Amino acid sequence: MSAGTNAKESSRIPYGGYYRRDDNEVSAAERIVTHAGPGSPMGEYMRRFWQPVCLSEELTDVPKVVQILHERLVAFRDRSGQVGLLFPHCSHRGTSLEFGIVQQRGIRCCYHGWLYDVDGRILETPCEPAGSRIKETVFHGAYPAFERDGIVFGYFGPPSEKPDFAEYDSYTIPEGTRLVPFSNLYECNWLQVFENLIDHFHSAVLHNNMTVDGLDAALAAGMNLGEGFREMPVIEWHTTRDGNGMLFTAGRRVAPDRVWVRTTELALPNYAATASLVPTAAELRHTTVAMSRWQVPVDDENMIVLGWRHFNDEIDPQHYGNAQDCGYDKIDFLEGQTRHRTYEEKQRAPGDYEAMTSQRPVALHHLENPGRSDVGVYLIRRLLREAVAGKTPADSTRPLAKAEGETLSTYTSDNVVRVAGVGGEADRELIATTCREVLAILKETDQVPRQQRRAHMLSRLDEFDGGL
Amino acid sequence: MSAGTNAKESSRIPYGGYYRRDDNEVSAAERIVTHAGPGSPMGEYMRRFWQPVCLSEELTDVPKVVQILHERLVAFRDRSGQVGLLFPHCSHRGTSLEFGIVQQRGIRCCYHGWLYDVDGRILETPCEPAGSRIKETVFHGAYPAFERDGIVFGYFGPPSEKPDFAEYDSYTIPEGTRLVPFSNLYECNWLQVFENLIDHFHSAVLHNNMTVDGLDAALAAGMNLGEGFREMPVIEWHTTRDGNGMLFTAGRRVAPDRVWVRTTELALPNYAATASLVPTAAELRHTTVAMSRWQVPVDDENMIVLGWRHFNDEIDPQHYGNAQDCGYDKIDFLEGQTRHRTYEEKQRAPGDYEAMTSQRPVALHHLENPGRSDVGVYLIRRLLREAVAGKTPADSTRPLAKAEGETLSTYTSDNVVRVAGVGGEADRELIATTCREVLAILKETDQVPRQQRRAHMLSRLDEFDGGL
Amino acid sequence: MSAGTNAKESSRIPYGGYYRRDDNEVSAAERIVTHAGPGSPMGEYMRRFWQPVCLSEELTDVPKVVQILHERLVAFRDRSGQVGLLFPHCSHRGTSLEFGIVQQRGIRCCYHGWLYDVDGRILETPCEPAGSRIKETVFHGAYPAFERDGIVFGYFGPPSEKPDFAEYDSYTIPEGTRLVPFSNLYECNWLQVFENLIDHFHSAVLHNNMTVDGLDAALAAGMNLGEGFREMPVIEWHTTRDGNGMLFTAGRRVAPDRVWVRTTELALPNYAATASLVPTAAELRHTTVAMSRWQVPVDDENMIVLGWRHFNDEIDPQHYGNAQDCGYDKIDFLEGQTRHRTYEEKQRAPGDYEAMTSQRPVALHHLENPGRSDVGVYLIRRLLREAVAGKTPADSTRPLAKAEGETLSTYTSDNVVRVAGVGGEADRELIATTCREVLAILKETDQVPRQQRRAHMLSRLDEFDGGL
Repeated sequence: MSAGTNAKESSRIPYGGYYRRDDNEVSAAERIVTHAGPGSPMGEYMRRFWQPVCLSEELTDVPKVVQILHERLVAFRDRSGQVGLLFPHCSHRGTSLEFGIVQQRGIRCCYHGWLYDVDGRILETPCEPAGSRIKETVFHGAYPAFERDGIVFGYFGPPSEKPDFAEYDSYTIPEGTRLVPFSNLYECNWLQVFENLIDHFHSAVLHNNMTVDGLDAALAAGMNLGEGFREMPVIEWHTTRDGNGMLFTAGRRVAPDRVWVRTTELALPNYAATASLVPTAAELRHTTVAMSRWQVPVDDENMIVLGWRHFNDEIDPQHYGNAQDCGYDKIDFLEGQTRHRTYEEKQRAPGDYEAMTSQRPVALHHLENPGRSDVGVYLIRRLLREAVAGKTPADSTRPLAKAEGETLSTYTSDNVVRVAGVGGEADRELIATTCREVLAILKETDQVPRQQRRAHMLSRLDEFDGGL
Repeated sequence: MSAGTNAKESSRIPYGGYYRRDDNEVSAAERIVTHAGPGSPMGEYMRRFWQPVCLSEELTDVPKVVQILHERLVAFRDRSGQVGLLFPHCSHRGTSLEFGIVQQRGIRCCYHGWLYDVDGRILETPCEPAGSRIKETVFHGAYPAFERDGIVFGYFGPPSEKPDFAEYDSYTIPEGTRLVPFSNLYECNWLQVFENLIDHFHSAVLHNNMTVDGLDAALAAGMNLGEGFREMPVIEWHTTRDGNGMLFTAGRRVAPDRVWVRTTELALPNYAATASLVPTAAELRHTTVAMSRWQVPVDDENMIVLGWRHFNDEIDPQHYGNAQDCGYDKIDFLEGQTRHRTYEEKQRAPGDYEAMTSQRPVALHHLENPGRSDVGVYLIRRLLREAVAGKTPADSTRPLAKAEGETLSTYTSDNVVRVAGVGGEADRELIATTCREVLAILKETDQVPRQQRRAHMLSRLDEFDGGL
Repeated sequence: MSAGTNAKESSRIPYGGYYRRDDNEVSAAERIVTHAGPGSPMGEYMRRFWQPVCLSEELTDVPKVVQILHERLVAFRDRSGQVGLLFPHCSHRGTSLEFGIVQQRGIRCCYHGWLYDVDGRILETPCEPAGSRIKETVFHGAYPAFERDGIVFGYFGPPSEKPDFAEYDSYTIPEGTRLVPFSNLYECNWLQVFENLIDHFHSAVLHNNMTVDGLDAALAAGMNLGEGFREMPVIEWHTTRDGNGMLFTAGRRVAPDRVWVRTTELALPNYAATASLVPTAAELRHTTVAMSRWQVPVDDENMIVLGWRHFNDEIDPQHYGNAQDCGYDKIDFLEGQTRHRTYEEKQRAPGDYEAMTSQRPVALHHLENPGRSDVGVYLIRRLLREAVAGKTPADSTRPLAKAEGETLSTYTSDNVVRVAGVGGEADRELIATTCREVLAILKETDQVPRQQRRAHMLSRLDEFDGGL
């Protein structure tokens, strides 16, 4: 058999590497869902939503260069408290405003002193004669921005299409919830990190003693999620909100008469809410969001997660979480989330960071061999493709916040229900049915005022299983 | 309003960033004046002049790799004192002569021992048989070079068009002048640094307390030019030497009856002479050149300044300057001239280095919004375009040195004259007129022998204002 | 003379650099012999031979990323001792197997647990349902591999054309021979390093006091080969094995009645055996291989030497060599073989590393000016071109090992014979004749069983010169 002859067939053999040397090019179809530069389909779609840009703590007495959606910008907070997101190069002669001096109002270019307000207006041109009309005719490139609980959000789309910020109930309930901002930088395309959230199976592999022998015991333990997560779950994926989002239900039998139902919701284009990350997830009757996060493209091969860890006594009564460990490029759950470890550490105890970033800078979907466990990943890709192509119902392309005082309900949760086991494959079917019933109850909360949603859930779960 | 609709018009609004995302490509017109590679219009024009290459101190007992006008060369001084500028790769089999061994005459390739003279002749090929004719048939690529006051100069054009070195009077007068060589590397196109010299307005902004609050007081002071420079000057730009150069006059009222007239001259393609950099500039009757410098392209996105600081008692009687601080990539005036500071230092106290290099690797002229203060910058660009296109009078395309013992007169100077103020806008007009009259006197020195130029200036200034 | 006019002729002048600014592009003809990527002529040719990949010591309890012939692979040794060479990205969703966990049998991807055997079979897909057929339908890209005396070898060609490993007698005789593995990484194309082996003239230049004055004496000595090597040798190059290899003979008069005949053999595509590297080379009657090595392309601009230093009492009775200094990217002869020195050290005492890597990332043959001393280099290029083009006799395109217990004879050797000098040019002719006669004797050993080859040589050399 000579090279090139019937290569496709030849590759289905042991030691068939010679027939499997692919070109590693990102395909046009793959670019549709991965590339988010200006003018690209996904880039334009993402620009119709508020996107987090950086942490509030990154804005100090000097400006900060940020890169979001392939655009390099200078972010700053002027002394009056306004947040600005400006094009980096001065409209006069191009000097970068990262070397500008923050003023009481706006920022001043260091070279010839042009002064910019946060909306791009030019307030002063000190080297020009008194009568100069430059201030009226030139506007500097700027984007709207605001701060919320330690995160700076920006809007990068056409001004006329600027939406309200999507306000989920989990941001403010349970009462006393504290949103602690964090970020995580990943050297890979944004979509790989977004997909990871809908890919719950990996919890039972990557986060389950996937380390070399002889590893330090404390480190090995830090790589794993709680015991409950190690069981291979019964998973189903569902489209939500007319195709503008999706969720999965993960059911596991945690006791002879108990099933743990976990739900995780994603909203297009790049938002996710994750349920509890600590062992009580599999023990408490009903808990909600532990982490809200956006997966934001930096460029094709870099992304940043920005979001909040939710701290309150309901989601984490044992106080496993630690707000001190959340902040710029750090997070308080699991080892292996960040780029900060040595290569040897990464090899000996691989984490999400390694699993995702090593899928290549941009994962090549055409080289994948997906199985049943990958249905969710392929569903989120399809929903993104449809949304980008304008096939998703127009009236819900963005999860708009509701009227004053009201909020979007989120379906992310952990629930423990009483369901007696039946053993074997039949039990897996029973778990699946249980998951669907809990999900139906969760969806009822759309019609319930925010303050009554928790009570509604508890009451309806009791109706379902007779109480724990 | 949807994306792309009437984008030009839409961009003239607050928060109009979405309509202002430019492609950032260097245009063909911009390349004409910025790109200096072999065969390019500007590259060929520049190659008709002697260009500085490195400091003499960089040539030691091992060769030195230099890059000038996009060409990588090996510079060395052989033990007989000859300076060589050779193509880096051995004509035999390509080994780099940067690993060659400097000889009494020439340099020897380490691999097979071919020995090269500074003119590219091959003197020895030791592995070849006695009768080999390689030495007669092969010449190695070489450029002429010489040393002058600590700077190595090279000529990179066609041998038949090699000019004399342009000898300015300021190199040798006043008597006792000491030329101290220095260099400065900038990570940007050469033209940005050349333009900065004709852009005197920035002195009143960048060099005038343009730092964050709370900065160390000594550092803050080090960022500023003397007090006189903080006033916004009355500036006019003039073409000189039939379009082969230009200058500006900057007039400032420094006392009720005194006007300080400063002139700075540039000569095409990339030479400039700067007047005093210390406070006495605004106090003394007439002083001349404090710095002679060439702005030399390394490649499109890197350049090097090579030149001399002039030390003598006339230009700096208070000895503010410090020859010890001049040398390889260092200079004794103002902080912020070099790449050596931390990013934080650069942000807190931006200097010329930050202002110029952050204009982008190659500044994009088509994105600028020039005002009245930018006339000089646009004039130097126009003069360069015309010279490159061959439209500048042919008999003066290079500032040729005059006959033996004579030199070119340079118009760079500081002058203080007695002119009573008239207040308001009329005073600015009076200052402008004063500048023009001082310039007329300066130009008379073209016809005056070098040794009598200073006396001529002093006498004519006294005629003009009756003496100080 | 204006630019571009008769440039070829104009370049043959002193200071003619302006007319000699070449484009530095690797030509198509040069790529034929230098480029070894998948599908390229040289790449496909090289893939018909076993190639060394890394040292055994590099395979530990974690996998190792290697790059060979432009292909990035994950190498590992599973706990049962099998060596695997797998495509890096998991066949499931692309996570790199460099973060996989080595198992008793095979390696497991960290993300979803797919388990791979060394031949690319998928043994487990733990997230998939019990009945999944993925394991039968998907094969992972893999290459055959084995270990031999501390080196991992792989075969990257079509499975049906996999050859036997070429077994040379020098690997096992003299009895007691110890093969000590080593590697050397070079930042240049593989061919430059291969050519260096056939280019014996450089020994008399590069390894002969080619250092700056004042260098530390011990270091200077470490740059030189033994005294015998400093004489300019009488060299002849010969094609061997029907064009599948070549050798050179280097003759030097080492005493009034003694001639030292050194032979070095190369086998296509990239194998070489080098004779003694220590002073006894020029003193002993007959010694054989001191080093066997493969010059392996990593990519166009990087290569790796992998091979063995041969230690036995016959080749190095004085024990100049030191096995402790051989290993990953280190070797025990001469300074200047590796990239590990500072730039200053490299300039002051250039070695093979500098001579070869500075020929450019890929040497440009069209800019060379070869002489008589370069005949060998041009011969190896021609043999490679012919072999790649399929013009070399098919029955010997690979140096196949002979039947069980037998081995290939290698012609690499040092021999000292008694031949009285005749002086002057005639003596050089006499040395050449002597070399040819010794070579003829060496070639007789093809027909001699491996255990009798040494005795045969000693006996025939005695016949030739009457004994030492």
